Amino acid sequence: MILSKVVGDVVSTCKHPTHEAIKLLLVRRINAEGEERGAPLVAVDVLDAGVGDTVLLTLDGWAAMTAVQRMKAPIDAAVIAIVDSIEWDGGEP
Amino acid sequence: MILSKVVGDVVSTCKHPTHEAIKLLLVRRINAEGEERGAPLVAVDVLDAGVGDTVLLTLDGWAAMTAVQRMKAPIDAAVIAIVDSIEWDGGEP
Amino acid sequence: MILSKVVGDVVSTCKHPTHEAIKLLLVRRINAEGEERGAPLVAVDVLDAGVGDTVLLTLDGWAAMTAVQRMKAPIDAAVIAIVDSIEWDGGEP
Amino acid sequence: MILSKVVGDVVSTCKHPTHEAIKLLLVRRINAEGEERGAPLVAVDVLDAGVGDTVLLTLDGWAAMTAVQRMKAPIDAAVIAIVDSIEWDGGEP
Amino acid sequence: MILSKVVGDVVSTCKHPTHEAIKLLLVRRINAEGEERGAPLVAVDVLDAGVGDTVLLTLDGWAAMTAVQRMKAPIDAAVIAIVDSIEWDGGEP
Repeated sequence: MILSKVVGDVVSTCKHPTHEAIKLLLVRRINAEGEERGAPLVAVDVLDAGVGDTVLLTLDGWAAMTAVQRMKAPIDAAVIAIVDSIEWDGGEP
Repeated sequence: MILSKVVGDVVSTCKHPTHEAIKLLLVRRINAEGEERGAPLVAVDVLDAGVGDTVLLTLDGWAAMTAVQRMKAPIDAAVIAIVDSIEWDGGEP
Repeated sequence: MILSKVVGDVVSTCKHPTHEAIKLLLVRRINAEGEERGAPLVAVDVLDAGVGDTVLLTLDGWAAMTAVQRMKAPIDAAVIAIVDSIEWDGGEP
Repeated sequence: MILSKVVGDVVSTCKHPTHEAIKLLLVRRINAEGEERGAPLVAVDVLDAGVGDTVLLTLDGWAAMTAVQRMKAPIDAAVIAIVDSIEWDGGEP
Repeated sequence: MILSKVVGDVVSTCKHPTHEAIKLLLVRRINAEGEERGAPLVAVDVLDAGVGDTVLLTLDGWAAMTAVQRMKAPIDAAVIAIVDSIEWDGGEP
């Protein structure tokens, strides 16, 4: 899984029918210094994460479908945890 | 899922038989500034996206086959939504 | 799927038994300018592509096995179309 | 599989129900010189690895679920071995 | 599949039970010039490849498990062929 930060959300009216009522978050991966890096990703969320939250993301298709219990929906990224704290080498960074 | 921009299409006559009548879009991923970046990708589209549209793409094989309901066709990228707007930190960029 | 150029082939006598009589092409991904980039990939081909051809490649294991109808063979890349032309923004580049 | 170093752990109270009582390690991939590189990853661990250990990681969803015997849990990275030694060209580096 | 060079092996005593008696090779991907590049990978081998061999690697979980006939073992990389020669554009490089 990867660590990422929620930076926004995505609005779409023309979409795959199985995506109705699915919340799509815009996230960006964070590096070892906790900074947002790289192109944005879009992930499904059922944990009610919000902008600014650090979340744990799965990028495996089957795992993501499992996370939101929609095995017939085309999903390949999902939030599976909202991170409280990250401990580096046993201490806070 | 990733955000990408539709930049063209791909024409092929010699192809896998399951790909008959499948529309193939040429897309490029967009970065945090909304600019097209990296090598082009080719994705199946059943939402009738056009050049210039920002689309949500799944890059998982199973998810992509599910998206177009062709579980026996070799597909690993599909458009699953046409994006209306992207909200960064709760506001338009 | 990705766009790539066929640049050669790979010969092997010591290989997985399910790979007998499978044609292996050496390919390289092409960028937005049509130039070959990055490390070479090896893909299974049942469409009889040749050196210099631009091909559409799937890099998903299940999709690649489906493409060559060998679900028990360890394959994760297959040619699924030979590209006739690529249209950028509705016109030839 | 990839080689990585355990650099910490991740604490989360709001998470997918199947992740209860799962230990999440923070790891970073190591390069050919044994140095930590790139953005951190989060992996499930059932081998009781600790900070500083070099571990073997699978990044495939199905393989990771198999590793921890939780086929219904959204997991895509798991520790599958704690590395005793790495031999380069038949000798220690 | 990717081309890589065998550069060593990995020794582990604390590992997933399904990995008992599995040979783990340390490999590095090779670029278009045949040079080793990037972080090392660890792959399962049943073809008895040795240090210095150029091998064909699958990085798909299902394909790798298929290659070694261990569908319940967490494996995502396997050697599927030892390469005799690579022909670029119909000639030796």
